[in-house]
Amino acid sequence: MYTEMTPNGYGISIEKGNVLYSGKSDFQELEIFESRGLGRVFTLDGLMMTTERDEYFYHELITHIPMITHKNPENVLVIGGGDGGTIREVLKHKSVKNVDLCEIDGLVIDVCKKYLPTIAYKLDDPKVKIYVEDAIEFIKDKKNIYDVILIDSTDPMGPGEGLFTEEFYNNVKASLRPGGIVVPQSESPYGQKESFEKVYKLLRRVFKNVAPYCSPVITYPSGYWSWAFCSDDVEIPTFDTKLDENRASEIENTCKIYNSKLHKGVFAVPNFVKELSK
Amino acid sequence: MYTEMTPNGYGISIEKGNVLYSGKSDFQELEIFESRGLGRVFTLDGLMMTTERDEYFYHELITHIPMITHKNPENVLVIGGGDGGTIREVLKHKSVKNVDLCEIDGLVIDVCKKYLPTIAYKLDDPKVKIYVEDAIEFIKDKKNIYDVILIDSTDPMGPGEGLFTEEFYNNVKASLRPGGIVVPQSESPYGQKESFEKVYKLLRRVFKNVAPYCSPVITYPSGYWSWAFCSDDVEIPTFDTKLDENRASEIENTCKIYNSKLHKGVFAVPNFVKELSK
Repeated sequence: MYTEMTPNGYGISIEKGNVLYSGKSDFQELEIFESRGLGRVFTLDGLMMTTERDEYFYHELITHIPMITHKNPENVLVIGGGDGGTIREVLKHKSVKNVDLCEIDGLVIDVCKKYLPTIAYKLDDPKVKIYVEDAIEFIKDKKNIYDVILIDSTDPMGPGEGLFTEEFYNNVKASLRPGGIVVPQSESPYGQKESFEKVYKLLRRVFKNVAPYCSPVITYPSGYWSWAFCSDDVEIPTFDTKLDENRASEIENTCKIYNSKLHKGVFAVPNFVKELSK
Repeated sequence: MYTEMTPNGYGISIEKGNVLYSGKSDFQELEIFESRGLGRVFTLDGLMMTTERDEYFYHELITHIPMITHKNPENVLVIGGGDGGTIREVLKHKSVKNVDLCEIDGLVIDVCKKYLPTIAYKLDDPKVKIYVEDAIEFIKDKKNIYDVILIDSTDPMGPGEGLFTEEFYNNVKASLRPGGIVVPQSESPYGQKESFEKVYKLLRRVFKNVAPYCSPVITYPSGYWSWAFCSDDVEIPTFDTKLDENRASEIENTCKIYNSKLHKGVFAVPNFVKELSK
């Protein structure tokens, strides 16, 4: 049995089948195992990264909300996300000319290509440039380049820790073109209240417009996840925001979750989430 | 350790503290145990019913969506819901003159009053009439009485099974006054796809307007839950629906989840949920 407990003594359990891969990089321990109900499961240092059967919640939500809100995203940066799921979703957008992937751990990319092909299969797309580097360094000399930046990182501990600082986000912001949008994963507002709160305090020091949007991610701590919509130039979507319905419906046709109504609905968050993200 | 697995081999685990109550009624086995992160936990036949720390997701959502959508709910029926959480939320609405609670298992009521006082404390309110009866029989002679009916039942197995039939729902519908709304819990669209699909096929045979609305319920199977908004006379809420903002904001001030924006947002469901509930 695989179990990932939150610090509060509850969590998800999964009947563990065959272990397909188990190894250690310079940064972390990687494992891929089979499960009856969730397909292949990928963990880093024993923490859930993704599963074949629920990965689309996370990957569709982190990607399509900023990508459809942006008027014409051509140049995109994905930080972390070595499993390739976010890249796969980004490439659905016809406007995209280039995607940079900056993943610190090359072994993540190799293992996911081999064992999670339905998630990773777009990593070899000619529009994708892969940089096996620390994003903290990578971003420093990038100025006025990206339309959308997706920060598909691990929790703020281990290799992901340095991605939760004001210096890093100031550099991220400087790398945006006018009209740019940044979306980091922002932890669970229920299972990880403290880190959720910290992330929003940090983001509000850097960006003019910041708001959480939420969705279930079945296998993540507490099952309830969030992302932060951040921009200086683009307003937070509301029920009245006019989306490009043609682009939204093209994407919707390829998705299990995303549609243009949900695009606006996910910003309607519970009172306690509003309070924690003030 | 308490673990509730879905049929698909994954589920929630909770570090189990002291067992405060363990007993058996004519219908089911009841248990209340303590936990570090979720407070007291209440199970029936080993299945999660509610916990002190996440109960408000379920109780606020089943109650306030139909209660605020209805123009003037005076007479309300709660079926199941012997823990009293739904009753507590219903009584927040000033328009309410009477709430009938029809719970098949009197022991549930007694145990919850004793061990879950923060959830059950409104069961003794003078506006509440408690009927320890089978709802299938109770509803048969009730005609043109209720404004809102909330079906806060267990899963469609065990004592809850008879509550998932067309005959029962036809009787429920006949017990509504004009403008009436019925909301049953409708299982998890992710963890219990088959029963979710069945429930909607059934409800669509009985009511003109039927739509799912969804929210996380941290401790329920898969963590992702749904309720069915059903009415012949009242339209499904959309982003453009005008709510009574005064009433909504009065309720919002007492809630951890509910607000008037979320009221509309919860109907923006993922593509796969729309598909399964057709």
